[in-house]
Amino acid sequence: MSSTVIKNGTIVTADLTYKADVKIEHGVIVEIGPNLSGDETLDATGCYVMPGGIDPHVHLEMPFMGTYSSDDFESGTRAGLAGGTTMVVDFCLPDPNQSLLDALKRWDNKSTRANADYSFHMSITWWGEQVFNEMETIVKEKGINTFKHFMAYKGALMVDDDEMFSSFQRCAALGALPLVHAENGDIVAQMQQKLLGEGNNGPEAHAYSRPASVEGEATNRAIIIADMAGVPLYVVHTSCEQAHEAIRRARQNGMRVYGEPLIQHLTLDESEYANPDWDHAARRVMSPPFRDNKHQDSLWAGLASGSLQVVATDHCAFTTEQKRYGVGDFTKIPNGTGGLEDRMPMLWTYGVATGRITMNEFVAVTSTNIAKILNVYPKKGAILVGADADIVVWDPNREKTITAASQQSAIDYNVFEGKTVKGLPRFTLTRGYVAVEESSIKTREGHGQFVARDPFPAVSSALSTWKEVTAPRKVQRTGIPASGV
Amino acid sequence: MSSTVIKNGTIVTADLTYKADVKIEHGVIVEIGPNLSGDETLDATGCYVMPGGIDPHVHLEMPFMGTYSSDDFESGTRAGLAGGTTMVVDFCLPDPNQSLLDALKRWDNKSTRANADYSFHMSITWWGEQVFNEMETIVKEKGINTFKHFMAYKGALMVDDDEMFSSFQRCAALGALPLVHAENGDIVAQMQQKLLGEGNNGPEAHAYSRPASVEGEATNRAIIIADMAGVPLYVVHTSCEQAHEAIRRARQNGMRVYGEPLIQHLTLDESEYANPDWDHAARRVMSPPFRDNKHQDSLWAGLASGSLQVVATDHCAFTTEQKRYGVGDFTKIPNGTGGLEDRMPMLWTYGVATGRITMNEFVAVTSTNIAKILNVYPKKGAILVGADADIVVWDPNREKTITAASQQSAIDYNVFEGKTVKGLPRFTLTRGYVAVEESSIKTREGHGQFVARDPFPAVSSALSTWKEVTAPRKVQRTGIPASGV
Amino acid sequence: MSSTVIKNGTIVTADLTYKADVKIEHGVIVEIGPNLSGDETLDATGCYVMPGGIDPHVHLEMPFMGTYSSDDFESGTRAGLAGGTTMVVDFCLPDPNQSLLDALKRWDNKSTRANADYSFHMSITWWGEQVFNEMETIVKEKGINTFKHFMAYKGALMVDDDEMFSSFQRCAALGALPLVHAENGDIVAQMQQKLLGEGNNGPEAHAYSRPASVEGEATNRAIIIADMAGVPLYVVHTSCEQAHEAIRRARQNGMRVYGEPLIQHLTLDESEYANPDWDHAARRVMSPPFRDNKHQDSLWAGLASGSLQVVATDHCAFTTEQKRYGVGDFTKIPNGTGGLEDRMPMLWTYGVATGRITMNEFVAVTSTNIAKILNVYPKKGAILVGADADIVVWDPNREKTITAASQQSAIDYNVFEGKTVKGLPRFTLTRGYVAVEESSIKTREGHGQFVARDPFPAVSSALSTWKEVTAPRKVQRTGIPASGV
Amino acid sequence: MSSTVIKNGTIVTADLTYKADVKIEHGVIVEIGPNLSGDETLDATGCYVMPGGIDPHVHLEMPFMGTYSSDDFESGTRAGLAGGTTMVVDFCLPDPNQSLLDALKRWDNKSTRANADYSFHMSITWWGEQVFNEMETIVKEKGINTFKHFMAYKGALMVDDDEMFSSFQRCAALGALPLVHAENGDIVAQMQQKLLGEGNNGPEAHAYSRPASVEGEATNRAIIIADMAGVPLYVVHTSCEQAHEAIRRARQNGMRVYGEPLIQHLTLDESEYANPDWDHAARRVMSPPFRDNKHQDSLWAGLASGSLQVVATDHCAFTTEQKRYGVGDFTKIPNGTGGLEDRMPMLWTYGVATGRITMNEFVAVTSTNIAKILNVYPKKGAILVGADADIVVWDPNREKTITAASQQSAIDYNVFEGKTVKGLPRFTLTRGYVAVEESSIKTREGHGQFVARDPFPAVSSALSTWKEVTAPRKVQRTGIPASGV
Repeated sequence: MSSTVIKNGTIVTADLTYKADVKIEHGVIVEIGPNLSGDETLDATGCYVMPGGIDPHVHLEMPFMGTYSSDDFESGTRAGLAGGTTMVVDFCLPDPNQSLLDALKRWDNKSTRANADYSFHMSITWWGEQVFNEMETIVKEKGINTFKHFMAYKGALMVDDDEMFSSFQRCAALGALPLVHAENGDIVAQMQQKLLGEGNNGPEAHAYSRPASVEGEATNRAIIIADMAGVPLYVVHTSCEQAHEAIRRARQNGMRVYGEPLIQHLTLDESEYANPDWDHAARRVMSPPFRDNKHQDSLWAGLASGSLQVVATDHCAFTTEQKRYGVGDFTKIPNGTGGLEDRMPMLWTYGVATGRITMNEFVAVTSTNIAKILNVYPKKGAILVGADADIVVWDPNREKTITAASQQSAIDYNVFEGKTVKGLPRFTLTRGYVAVEESSIKTREGHGQFVARDPFPAVSSALSTWKEVTAPRKVQRTGIPASGV
Repeated sequence: MSSTVIKNGTIVTADLTYKADVKIEHGVIVEIGPNLSGDETLDATGCYVMPGGIDPHVHLEMPFMGTYSSDDFESGTRAGLAGGTTMVVDFCLPDPNQSLLDALKRWDNKSTRANADYSFHMSITWWGEQVFNEMETIVKEKGINTFKHFMAYKGALMVDDDEMFSSFQRCAALGALPLVHAENGDIVAQMQQKLLGEGNNGPEAHAYSRPASVEGEATNRAIIIADMAGVPLYVVHTSCEQAHEAIRRARQNGMRVYGEPLIQHLTLDESEYANPDWDHAARRVMSPPFRDNKHQDSLWAGLASGSLQVVATDHCAFTTEQKRYGVGDFTKIPNGTGGLEDRMPMLWTYGVATGRITMNEFVAVTSTNIAKILNVYPKKGAILVGADADIVVWDPNREKTITAASQQSAIDYNVFEGKTVKGLPRFTLTRGYVAVEESSIKTREGHGQFVARDPFPAVSSALSTWKEVTAPRKVQRTGIPASGV
Repeated sequence: MSSTVIKNGTIVTADLTYKADVKIEHGVIVEIGPNLSGDETLDATGCYVMPGGIDPHVHLEMPFMGTYSSDDFESGTRAGLAGGTTMVVDFCLPDPNQSLLDALKRWDNKSTRANADYSFHMSITWWGEQVFNEMETIVKEKGINTFKHFMAYKGALMVDDDEMFSSFQRCAALGALPLVHAENGDIVAQMQQKLLGEGNNGPEAHAYSRPASVEGEATNRAIIIADMAGVPLYVVHTSCEQAHEAIRRARQNGMRVYGEPLIQHLTLDESEYANPDWDHAARRVMSPPFRDNKHQDSLWAGLASGSLQVVATDHCAFTTEQKRYGVGDFTKIPNGTGGLEDRMPMLWTYGVATGRITMNEFVAVTSTNIAKILNVYPKKGAILVGADADIVVWDPNREKTITAASQQSAIDYNVFEGKTVKGLPRFTLTRGYVAVEESSIKTREGHGQFVARDPFPAVSSALSTWKEVTAPRKVQRTGIPASGV
Repeated sequence: MSSTVIKNGTIVTADLTYKADVKIEHGVIVEIGPNLSGDETLDATGCYVMPGGIDPHVHLEMPFMGTYSSDDFESGTRAGLAGGTTMVVDFCLPDPNQSLLDALKRWDNKSTRANADYSFHMSITWWGEQVFNEMETIVKEKGINTFKHFMAYKGALMVDDDEMFSSFQRCAALGALPLVHAENGDIVAQMQQKLLGEGNNGPEAHAYSRPASVEGEATNRAIIIADMAGVPLYVVHTSCEQAHEAIRRARQNGMRVYGEPLIQHLTLDESEYANPDWDHAARRVMSPPFRDNKHQDSLWAGLASGSLQVVATDHCAFTTEQKRYGVGDFTKIPNGTGGLEDRMPMLWTYGVATGRITMNEFVAVTSTNIAKILNVYPKKGAILVGADADIVVWDPNREKTITAASQQSAIDYNVFEGKTVKGLPRFTLTRGYVAVEESSIKTREGHGQFVARDPFPAVSSALSTWKEVTAPRKVQRTGIPASGV
């Protein structure tokens, strides 16, 4: 057995900043303190030693129109590690009427080549007794405590309010956390047809078809349904003030709601769709679309104030060739962009270096908060003895200009092309293994393991108690008349 | 031809308070000024001469479970006149897949005995090409410019988002105004079953099954759908802060949204359902249910500030016997309460006499605003030369204690039983005819006429212009690649 | 006695749009109806006949640093009439420790040359028993029911919270309405010195020294003080979302608060201060400064929704030469811009023509609402029999490009220079006299009269009642111990 | 040297819950893990091992009207330890024009008898060059990084906006955190005189004189001033929705603002002042006064959502005899209540046991968040190796009914009298010393030490960076005219 020591660095966690070395054995942190030594030494002089990033929202090798999103678990996790991200959470997507367990097998098969640890969210794409029953198996036997619900993608993944309410109540009973993609799918579907009918068939019409208000509406609706079901809620890819406002409003009423902005929405805006180059615009097509800078300000403030907790990517990489399926019909442009490799450097550059967030908040929103919400803290998201040695040694002075030419992702472009970032990994360790050393990538295919997650985090239990305390009480009657029927 | 003069009163309108006499001929105001004389004189000394009330939300002789709500157009309009209300708007409710025009004929038949003028809202209870086409006829030929949509009553009147968005767009094209009953019907339906399953079968469970958040959600959703459709929106029976907040939020973003609190929600609260007498509680069962006084404060403030515009009743009177259909199962208690006779005295007593609203605001919310929104102003809702002589001569010193024993309504109780009101009609005139003189009721069956209403009020047209000015614009591309397919 | 008839026009008021002629005698409207005839006829074919505009916020011949703002009551009211404005309200500004009555005499003297009617707000620039007493005389004998308070201009006009609360309570007792210039003067004063100290001495620093948050703070503070005093409040030149939010928040709690955006803030933005031409920027120096378009959207929405009621100008015209007093020190640039002539055409072009507001709302915010709030309705602000014949015959097709070269104002530039407006007066009548006929100006010096205004409008009385109803009540004690002292 | 081990407990921190023993030497935690042993063992079976509470807001032996608040550093810290609180922060209050350093000496003298650790906030009660200079000494040499500002107590402690803005800018430069007591002192002072004048001289008038709106106003004002100064802000004793709303609004705009509800405001309401017993009501007189339960809901939600961060007591205990100074004149009732001993049991009972907050959130708001904000984390507020062994071993099943008869505090009553709490300390350790073992109190007078706190926490530095990034920029002019003067 060999040991590794990260020396001379400054440990930065979600709530601490201090000088100490970190010693690793068997992929786990075994000691934190001054003057440690081991078999191998990684020099962290001038660097911050932080929990590796967790991206809670990726789609690797996602099935789409007979093909797949281009980054699979191998290239996707490699891209992640290159950017300091040591764990990803993918979405298992059952086909209509498919068993959740069968779907999970497909995802298990795809993930075998992962270079870093991963977990799954299960998607509820239909409803029935089988789903109701299998949810229990998923939670109790499969290590999955999160269920995703699509309020958009009508005719495909979308579920309606009735199904969502049923599923949310089931989540409450199982101690699981529901996730929602919040856009009103009925409106979007009609808007798409309307825009196409008016000749608006370019990528910009994608943005026109799903404005911020439509996201805000669905976010608000999901929140109310969760509140009625007595369960916390996690809103994925919160992109706009309207959705954020709904989240804030809920939280200020004591509801337990989380919001997840994407690095893309924080740093890119809707003007991208007005680019005269069709490819440029189409490559930025994702749902929700990019917004204007009023929304960006809102999201940044949310990260600083805690009304938004997590920064993700929704990494779902389609090549330019795949994007061109939608020439002449924007509804056929595959939705998705990359970001796994760039999330942390972009957030550091636009967030920490500008003073919008502190280093500790950076760690919180890229890793620790996510681990807590997903109930894998402190195995993940922590620099603590006993935690997995998923660590990024962050060099705040390392600089590069982002370009597709040198990226790990399998696609042929990068939505951040040309942005200069300052703040990059010197080393990225996945369970103690040094997968990245500056620009040298040494990932090991298949090294990644599935991370099981238990139900009933503290917030979930507390909410159940509160709902019982405040439950409807039957009124005692002095007499009840005979029925009028 | 004879003339009537109202003498010695103070005219109070939505924006003026001044001394003048009013002369009436042929049911129309022909002169306003000092020292008028005519064949008949009504002494208004010490009184306010105001536009007769308009109740935009009543259900007279509404079909229900093989029977009908107990107040029909005769007793309902008589109750209204007794309380100073000179016009009502009822809801035409087509059966599933029924022609709108056929349904309208049924309502035309029912209304022939009306003592005062009336109009109809048409309800959209299903969707299809026939409905799409008939909406045009309804607007252009039938004098109806408002369409009601139920977001609750699943399995019966409820329409979904897709249908609502279709109908709202149709309204926009026709210059009509959509109305919504805003409660999330999916959630309510499940909550009803859940509560029954837990043994919560009393009237209080009615309230538990449709909390304020569920109304707020639907209100917000309807607003976004209207905004996407480019049409103003009228939210009926706004009962809570959550719905009001959604309306305010929309209005502060420039949207054209109206809210209608009921006199019941302004003055009665949820403690009514905790009454140990089953009948007492069941008689108060309506949707939305009564709320607590935090919500009442919100509604009152809305009337004063203009974020809510109208006070209605949703008068839908079921007898105690009918209410008892729901003994043992609250979902079978017919929804509805009375209020037509009491709306104006209650609002005066609790609003004007306390200083929460001015006399002019009283006129605005009971009459003038309604007439403007429904586009029948100044034929109705005005004391102006040329306006219909629908007038109430209001005696601010006349006092009574409300009791079912002496009411006009056909039902055997009154939800305001025991409340003392100060401020009552001395005379109520319907198109010049003195139908009420203090406690003497002289209504004429069949006197009431249908009031046709034109589409495209100014707000509707302005909104259309703004939506065009800000419509999505196609991006000019320098080149579009060949499709990838 | 001769009569004038305005024929063939469409009357547009705050709540009506209809075809009718208007007959005028002795400066007053004597008849409204079809087919009227008189000695003189004004053809309104294709035009809207509207109440003349009222600008509630002007400073004519305002004393400043030993000189005066360049538009006096003659040129100022002439500019107003040229743009459809038939009444202005100026601010009487007592010197420190000066008698209010003495100050009023100075203003009376200045206004003798007015071409159109006018009224005064009295400013409370200091506090003491004399002010307390004279306020009663001002209200009861001088026809002034509004008192202005400056929360900015430290060392000059500014009053502190203690003085403001005293004055507001006095207003409540007298039935008068307090007005506030809401900016935190302490912060502004320090910011000015800080910016100058950093070398930021250009006109843009004027804007930096008084950001939106400083206006929002003071607005909120004034509102709370008014609420504690039990008096309505009118906030002048509301320029930003923060102030508007405070107003909305107050209104949604039932408070009686009015907000007055200026046409400049609605249509011009902060980029004006970044103009490389010093003169260009300095000419736009006013307080509050122009804001960005997020704030503009907020103000427009406020006009449509009713949370803001009035559009004014704060017309206070200084020549370029006067502006140059502030070269090298922005704090010495005289604060003020023009706008009297352009308010209505600009608002029509950017508001009505785009559909942001309706024609009726245009009349409301330029005239009728103002008249109501200032309690001179319907003498002013109305097209009603008995109202003053202050009328503008508005030609929606008349077009011009605004330029200083052809304006009535005495100054040498125009902040709207180069803007094309469509919608201009065909005729402007001041108490029946045709002072403007398209580009022909026929004003009569001295024609204008002082308009006296009574205290205790309905809203003020209602608020007093409500404050009594909800006043603190002494608790009945069972026994009170002996004092511990 | 002896060691102590806490065995068999469950460690609960702000972000972790896990089984482990804790070993202590020299007053510091030296090891955390399974199966530890030491010289002394404390059995934590069935208990939670948590960081000792920190009360950031107490007034011990506070000078008042020639006497002192009755709990001094000895009895106050003893009461704290009895309830699980191991550190208090008191307020040093310079007299008008007194040197800050001289005042600090007085506080140093008073604190020598403390049983637990303590720190000081320095109050800015006047402004001048001396204060400006001494602030630097206080921060750099005296270990104090927080400065308190009173916006109320006119004529005594109150500072005005100008002084506050000056002081806040000084705080920004020094990396210190300003605190505010936020109530508008001008309004309160006038309201007091007005109420007395009306015969409202009882304790309830204390509440009438300082309603929630007055606190909300001042909170909002302080926030804007802090934002202009570029410094974070800490609002003490946030008692109402209005203040909380201002805080939330600021935070949603990215500002760094903290709010501190008191346990009293969370659990007691304004009905206490309506108690017919004068003593009962007077004993509850504090500023701000207790509010109604709408405000309580707001505060609880703030703790759960993170918009409020800290629960304190403002412990300032006056005896009934002292309270009676105010018989016949409520303004003479000394302001203050107790709470040090009850804060944690009350919060556990009403917060954790009901599910409103989790155990981890309990630790956060009673200890860890405070330590972070005050920049003494992880020396205090943590269960980490190296942290001070300020620890409470919390027995969730221990129960008692609060009564003055058995309390540690020197006063003769308890505002929570009669409340039953479940959840109490089994042991409280102050730097390793077991000062409390269930009901046995073994405090050591003089054991407590001053805790020095460094300036420039991360949030403060980040904010400075952001303010630089967004600072006003001078416009480049093409030419500047000659001055007009």
